[in-house]
Amino acid sequence: MRRGLLVVALALALPVGAQNATSPPKPRTPQQIIDAAPASAWRTLDPANTLYLELASGRVIIELAPGFAPEHVANIKTMAKGSFWDGLTIYRSQDNFVVQFGDAEGEEAGKAKPYPAGTRTHLPAEFTRSATGVPFDRLPDVDGWAPQVGFADGFPVGRNPQTGQMWIAHCYGVVGAGRNNAPDSSIGAELYAVIGQAPRALDHQLTVVGRVVQGMELLSVIPRGPAPMGFYTDPALRTPILSIKLASEVPVAQRTPLQLLRTDSQAFIDATEARRNRKDDFYTQPPGHIDLCGVPLPVRTPPAP
Amino acid sequence: MRRGLLVVALALALPVGAQNATSPPKPRTPQQIIDAAPASAWRTLDPANTLYLELASGRVIIELAPGFAPEHVANIKTMAKGSFWDGLTIYRSQDNFVVQFGDAEGEEAGKAKPYPAGTRTHLPAEFTRSATGVPFDRLPDVDGWAPQVGFADGFPVGRNPQTGQMWIAHCYGVVGAGRNNAPDSSIGAELYAVIGQAPRALDHQLTVVGRVVQGMELLSVIPRGPAPMGFYTDPALRTPILSIKLASEVPVAQRTPLQLLRTDSQAFIDATEARRNRKDDFYTQPPGHIDLCGVPLPVRTPPAP
Repeated sequence: MRRGLLVVALALALPVGAQNATSPPKPRTPQQIIDAAPASAWRTLDPANTLYLELASGRVIIELAPGFAPEHVANIKTMAKGSFWDGLTIYRSQDNFVVQFGDAEGEEAGKAKPYPAGTRTHLPAEFTRSATGVPFDRLPDVDGWAPQVGFADGFPVGRNPQTGQMWIAHCYGVVGAGRNNAPDSSIGAELYAVIGQAPRALDHQLTVVGRVVQGMELLSVIPRGPAPMGFYTDPALRTPILSIKLASEVPVAQRTPLQLLRTDSQAFIDATEARRNRKDDFYTQPPGHIDLCGVPLPVRTPPAP
Repeated sequence: MRRGLLVVALALALPVGAQNATSPPKPRTPQQIIDAAPASAWRTLDPANTLYLELASGRVIIELAPGFAPEHVANIKTMAKGSFWDGLTIYRSQDNFVVQFGDAEGEEAGKAKPYPAGTRTHLPAEFTRSATGVPFDRLPDVDGWAPQVGFADGFPVGRNPQTGQMWIAHCYGVVGAGRNNAPDSSIGAELYAVIGQAPRALDHQLTVVGRVVQGMELLSVIPRGPAPMGFYTDPALRTPILSIKLASEVPVAQRTPLQLLRTDSQAFIDATEARRNRKDDFYTQPPGHIDLCGVPLPVRTPPAP
């Protein structure tokens, strides 16, 4: 070929049968493994634990993590049911770090939007949860930030067997609760999503409430605000939030059914292993390693029954 | 405070003197360390090894890495001098992965843009370089992808003392040469930049030619193309490249002077250590770890003489 056009196929779909008769069968690609997974390997996104963040550009879908942050998630549900974020904005976008949204005037007396009835105005910090009894799908790869890493409730987590604690890692797409200096100063009204290299140094120092499962590409392109922290100085540059609703509060016909591959499924284990040892016509050197935040968490539209 | 507004200060500028007389002095923040660095801790970006990628949205500045990819960098310089990319496009944007630019029609006979005179149409793969004799500023932190990590020529690198090889790691902002399956199928005409979680699995499997030192926020917001790989199906969606020029070919008055903190400087070592052990009023738990791709590589406008 005349040009060196990058053909980085995250799913190099080489049909298994299309080989020279004398060559050994090629191992399945991650996508082939995922495509062959049985129905039982998929879990349905629970509308009662799903937020729809509606922007002019489309819908961002966030799976909430009540197992990790029950009080923040409950408060977020209260605020969503009360249409708190309708008309608020994405007011911060910092490259290789986060976008952040909520009430840009929330700190200004007389300007802050009132909370919906029932919103709690003080919550405990929920930086970690007890790991006891929580099914943990461990990733064997070494990690510099946590003694153990893996998945729980479908979320990427760090885990410390000595302290008996577990926490959601700040991977790309993870959503957390903005706070001030006091650990218990977040209530879920201000939220941020990671849009760059996973800032793992934030792990177990903020309350993580969920992760974006679809529509991340709508957040990651939000124009960046000025240095140092990406807060827009001109309010006109903020991206309007049309609404944030719980999927369960939206008419069924307007929902986005999604399924996620279970992290305890053989398909997930096998697909992760295939990626860990990826070897194909383009990538000829299997790395033998994968990062927690580099493990794909497959999502699909449920197949027609 | 009424709201939990995230105050993630990458540079929490607490004046050293502003403390209670009975409290111990606070360690310097990374920014304080960088601000106090002597002039000798800064190196000047060499215009002869700097590309200006001009978009309608502004200038993206790329430092080239001739020590790592001498043949690709030489070829890129030839193409830049020949205005090869003028009028070409950013034709791919894949979320949490790369943007890619060059000749979108480069594979189509009769449509491909001719190369400038002197452009070599075949280069060796330059996936790694010999580590022998190359100053290496080692990072002591464990890394799952390479036996050793650190910095060389100011670039983030992996290093294998057994093989004696070194390579630039695929951190956020790193620029590489698109290729086809054959290792020696890139010539530097198609380039990509990392816009998400560092895809370290690509390390030493592609030729890395440099990294974005300024203007990354102009690339990371390029609207994403459709799945699976982000190539736009509608040519009208491609982002036009006004030009790519070597800074040395641009009149001095139109250049962007920049300095980068030397990775062998005490200031860099100290600032990295301060970040590794960051502890302040917001981040109260020093991580004791930093990732290669999470180490800030400070850039500044040279101070007025």
